Amino acid sequence: MTQPGPDTATVTLAHGNGGRLMRQLIDAVFVRQLGNPWLAPLADAAILPPFPDGDHELVFTSDGVTVQPLFFAGGDIGSLAVHGTVNDLAVCGATPRYLSLNAFLEEGLPLEALERIVESLAEAARACDVQVVAGDTKVLPRGLCGGLYFGVSGIGTRPAGLTLGTHGIRAGDAVLVSGPLGDHGIAVMLAREEFGLSGNLASDSASVLPLTRALLTMPGLRFMRDPTRGGLATVLHEVIQATGLGVTLEEPRLPIRGSVRSVCDMLGYDPLYLACEGRVVAIVAEDEADEALCRWQALPQGRGAQRIGALDPHHDRLLLVNEWGGERLLQELEDDPLPRIC
Amino acid sequence: MTQPGPDTATVTLAHGNGGRLMRQLIDAVFVRQLGNPWLAPLADAAILPPFPDGDHELVFTSDGVTVQPLFFAGGDIGSLAVHGTVNDLAVCGATPRYLSLNAFLEEGLPLEALERIVESLAEAARACDVQVVAGDTKVLPRGLCGGLYFGVSGIGTRPAGLTLGTHGIRAGDAVLVSGPLGDHGIAVMLAREEFGLSGNLASDSASVLPLTRALLTMPGLRFMRDPTRGGLATVLHEVIQATGLGVTLEEPRLPIRGSVRSVCDMLGYDPLYLACEGRVVAIVAEDEADEALCRWQALPQGRGAQRIGALDPHHDRLLLVNEWGGERLLQELEDDPLPRIC
Repeated sequence: MTQPGPDTATVTLAHGNGGRLMRQLIDAVFVRQLGNPWLAPLADAAILPPFPDGDHELVFTSDGVTVQPLFFAGGDIGSLAVHGTVNDLAVCGATPRYLSLNAFLEEGLPLEALERIVESLAEAARACDVQVVAGDTKVLPRGLCGGLYFGVSGIGTRPAGLTLGTHGIRAGDAVLVSGPLGDHGIAVMLAREEFGLSGNLASDSASVLPLTRALLTMPGLRFMRDPTRGGLATVLHEVIQATGLGVTLEEPRLPIRGSVRSVCDMLGYDPLYLACEGRVVAIVAEDEADEALCRWQALPQGRGAQRIGALDPHHDRLLLVNEWGGERLLQELEDDPLPRIC
Repeated sequence: MTQPGPDTATVTLAHGNGGRLMRQLIDAVFVRQLGNPWLAPLADAAILPPFPDGDHELVFTSDGVTVQPLFFAGGDIGSLAVHGTVNDLAVCGATPRYLSLNAFLEEGLPLEALERIVESLAEAARACDVQVVAGDTKVLPRGLCGGLYFGVSGIGTRPAGLTLGTHGIRAGDAVLVSGPLGDHGIAVMLAREEFGLSGNLASDSASVLPLTRALLTMPGLRFMRDPTRGGLATVLHEVIQATGLGVTLEEPRLPIRGSVRSVCDMLGYDPLYLACEGRVVAIVAEDEADEALCRWQALPQGRGAQRIGALDPHHDRLLLVNEWGGERLLQELEDDPLPRIC
């Protein structure tokens, strides 16, 4: 067996963080057994063969939601479940159509909480114009489930022949992000009593469909991804591994709220590794980057968008350059800074 | 809020048993919020509008798998995950095409066990000719997950216009079952050390595709369902509620292995409420019942098939008649006899 990491005998929390160990686990266990032409384990969704008329492709995606606590400023596990799957479809250029919902409920979960969560889930689905059409409910004995987990799958459609992905990325392409980084991660952390912190920061949990649609018609659009678990740094590490190119980020251009920065400084987190749930990272041809940024900044969801860096042929790392020219390497995530963040 | 059961404040294990409380919970919480023309909460899968050419329908389904222990005679959580979703599609008359896999892993799960499970899952998928094309992995802190849960969703296709369902059922129609009842439930129970029992009974976990395909061409085929959680009795209660007709079962014709009967007698279970994972219940026009039975008995999976009863316009209950004409009412399931059976 390919060794999925230093702790080879058991699953560790770091196997769930979106970073290196998780990638190795998925490769060593899941891809090795399940590999097929459509399984793209690090992409957000599978693009299925045109079916059955050749004009449209089905896009199929899956997302587990285990956030704790179940309610936090700006959302809850219900709205997050919808946005997570809708966004996985959106960044593939698809229009989300149908969702399925696997609910894992813990014995003792207050029905009032479940009802509020499903209400919020339904509201988010209506707002995204998707239908929940299939579901299953399992109840786990007390102590064997952290309240409530959702497994969500989604079907979307997109015009056949759309070529988004890391394969189109070229040296010099621009890296854009649609808004402030780390809001979701910090909002969930603030909702955890264990940190003893409070603040008025809300999660960015939202549909990114308006953002992805705004760029879809641009010929220079190469790649989009929503930076959830593992954050911006983790998305860019996947790009680096897929392309062999480096990425150089300009620190002064990174959109990060002061309140997020403060909490990160206090607790020792790096906002570039924190989950967003309503942002898009896009890679765009250099000569269309300004136009893409304009399109995003014209949207309410994209007012905080920034062009933050470029694909760099001179190295193969993720490099952060500060305002004085100082450089810092951003490594792939090792341990899991925040289990159950999404 | 509609009261989902006597214990109205929290989720109980009985909310997961497939019976009355679970139906009420799903109606009161999920259907009320999420209702739409395609959501058929008690059916196994959603039939989506013909897309996009009118010749085929997409069938979309979802199933959570939480069986404990992870390994049992005749299968494991990996093969069960595939068979559960494949069978939900098959009983709708669909050909399974694609699966998505949400894995919830507990910190500390031995990687060797995970590897064996995914290997078994992949083997089952190959045997069913389905591709796992999308997935997500979440790791839960120790104690917050019973080892491993899967949320599986599946996409199948079927010719547009197939009319299977409870709406076609008529008084006098025959009820058939494709093989012995309760094998899966008892095999999992025997694998649990807490019962201190052993035996050589294996789960019936398998694809039912050959069984469903054998009947699909029959004009008198009304309805098919795989009797998983809650068993045969639960499927027939759904039929009774949907049609307003009663069902009379002939006890001597029920295929139940002696070993299953013995364990049930010892532990106080009723095999008619135990989960199968490789059987089909079919409802067929009376004049085609013999032909349907012949077709099933000609298959290796259907050798133990039996015609077990009929739709009865003279009452609206589930009635079991023994060889001496004695009658017993089979109620809807109340508590959960066997949590984590599938």
